[in-house]
Amino acid sequence: MTTVAAYAAPAAKAPLERTTIERRAVGEFDVLIDIKFAGICHSDIHQAREGWGTAIFPMVPGHEIAGVISEVGPGVTKYQVGDRVGVGCFVDSCRTCENCEAGLEQYCTGTGQVPTYNGIGKDGEPTHGGYSQQIVVDENYTVRIPDGLSLDVAAPLLCAGITLYSPLKHWAAGPGKKVAIVGLGGLGHMGVKIAHALGAEVTVLSQSLRKKDDGLKLGAAHYYATSDPKTFEELAGTFDLIISTVSAPLDFSAYASLLKTDGTLVNVGAPEEPVSLNLFSLIMGRRSLAGSSIGGIRETQEMLDFCAEHGLGSEIELISASEINEAYERVLNSDVRYRFVIDTATI
Amino acid sequence: MTTVAAYAAPAAKAPLERTTIERRAVGEFDVLIDIKFAGICHSDIHQAREGWGTAIFPMVPGHEIAGVISEVGPGVTKYQVGDRVGVGCFVDSCRTCENCEAGLEQYCTGTGQVPTYNGIGKDGEPTHGGYSQQIVVDENYTVRIPDGLSLDVAAPLLCAGITLYSPLKHWAAGPGKKVAIVGLGGLGHMGVKIAHALGAEVTVLSQSLRKKDDGLKLGAAHYYATSDPKTFEELAGTFDLIISTVSAPLDFSAYASLLKTDGTLVNVGAPEEPVSLNLFSLIMGRRSLAGSSIGGIRETQEMLDFCAEHGLGSEIELISASEINEAYERVLNSDVRYRFVIDTATI
Repeated sequence: MTTVAAYAAPAAKAPLERTTIERRAVGEFDVLIDIKFAGICHSDIHQAREGWGTAIFPMVPGHEIAGVISEVGPGVTKYQVGDRVGVGCFVDSCRTCENCEAGLEQYCTGTGQVPTYNGIGKDGEPTHGGYSQQIVVDENYTVRIPDGLSLDVAAPLLCAGITLYSPLKHWAAGPGKKVAIVGLGGLGHMGVKIAHALGAEVTVLSQSLRKKDDGLKLGAAHYYATSDPKTFEELAGTFDLIISTVSAPLDFSAYASLLKTDGTLVNVGAPEEPVSLNLFSLIMGRRSLAGSSIGGIRETQEMLDFCAEHGLGSEIELISASEINEAYERVLNSDVRYRFVIDTATI
Repeated sequence: MTTVAAYAAPAAKAPLERTTIERRAVGEFDVLIDIKFAGICHSDIHQAREGWGTAIFPMVPGHEIAGVISEVGPGVTKYQVGDRVGVGCFVDSCRTCENCEAGLEQYCTGTGQVPTYNGIGKDGEPTHGGYSQQIVVDENYTVRIPDGLSLDVAAPLLCAGITLYSPLKHWAAGPGKKVAIVGLGGLGHMGVKIAHALGAEVTVLSQSLRKKDDGLKLGAAHYYATSDPKTFEELAGTFDLIISTVSAPLDFSAYASLLKTDGTLVNVGAPEEPVSLNLFSLIMGRRSLAGSSIGGIRETQEMLDFCAEHGLGSEIELISASEINEAYERVLNSDVRYRFVIDTATI
């Protein structure tokens, strides 16, 4: 066991504060990672405030982790001390179900994935995330960060990057495809970068034109305000694929009408309440409304390699640990371009 | 112009009564079909009663038409007098849009498809459907009924058959796939027959076990009552594909939970009101909710050939034209096994 400095929410809705936590001893197949940077994801806030149901406290959030390996267990074969690695939204899974065997650990149907924080590890202890100085993770749930990516801009790729990369690949975004990204936040801005790098023609659908210049710089060819009803007339039947990154309930029938025949509207944002949908908007045009959750370990590695090759880091605002609570408020006000990343040396 | 006996609704919600209508002269590429049988589809009732919005009256419903060609235009190359043919839900489309060129006329994005009834033809006149003794149709919107199929049991295939065949093929129902059909009515019973013939393992999900014996005879391997909450526990994560044929709003989140990872829940029934859905039920498992509408002309021909090869006609109750109004009431009460077909000689 190692005692590690961390920032934790002591209770639901309480401000995060500095504390210490215990990390397990490095096991046979474990690596000890000196965390350098941890991204702040909107879902950290959902969970720290129990927006998604009962949670485990004290809670050390953070599942966008980038660091350097400082110790390896005797059975570790993939990594050595000094390797630059990342950890995403889960740190284990059953490893034997059909999905785990197919590299879709995020959809593990056995014991389920073990969340990086706000979960219970296989040792029966609560898991703690990246707002801390070290973490011990099985090598099979660790990914390599290629040399071409700085650790600070790589951290958000572990959730925001893979959350967009996975559906863009699964629904075949690429040359000749028209792709819309709904919402230009932490997730959406990575969607624009990745879809553009995959060769698709990218449109941003955002509430206003406030971030239009950014969107075009990130790789969008077009930028429309969804607050303008003319947008929905003008773009009817346009897109092969729409990925919505927003957690607010949208008018899904209106967004579905923007799809071509056989098009798909994928949700990676997760509204807390049920949404309403007119099924005619799917029936007329054989359209689909789908969902997607992060990605598996193999695909996360593929995403990091792709991002390194194309020079795609996240756009970040680097903060010190003492600014976490303020950053949470700014995330809730959509006031971040485009991801807060904690310099864990300041914990 | 030819005067033809027909049954028509003179106004919304009025009973259907015997009348005569005019059919256009046989044009260069037209065939004149002596209608022998016409199926009664639930959507006939929706439209005759203006459940789907303003309609055109007098209305001669019927888009499940089987008959024999009695005259051909000079330019017709595909058919000759005496050929057994069918007409489905549309009798024309723009013919030049991407979907028409791809054989997806049902999703025509040009002028839109011309409905077999309750539409306006390219000649500017209202179209009239199969509850009549003859119809004039362009040969390109006519399909051949193979010798192996009797005309009476073939008629419902033109809507009920293709409505299920098309999504079953599109979402790859076949050996090794677990397919559920929701609702065992006119559409559902064809879904069971076709999915079974395609080699899938078929489950019927019906409100009660009332029609269980029928379902198993039609080809289902399993039959569950959706009124029993244990059904949803027992079948969680089971199906590759679920096709819902019911127009009533379902608990779509509960049905989505019955899908495997990457499974699809397809609606071919069309609830008049928007439905409610918890998006987590799609996000957890990368599931899709989709819609599908009938099929194109090429695929309708393929479906008829498939049904003939496998001996799949509809299960029907043959009625005379004077029984149409009573049949409508029985359809609304789900009291038909499984499709009413009008013997048009009785008009």
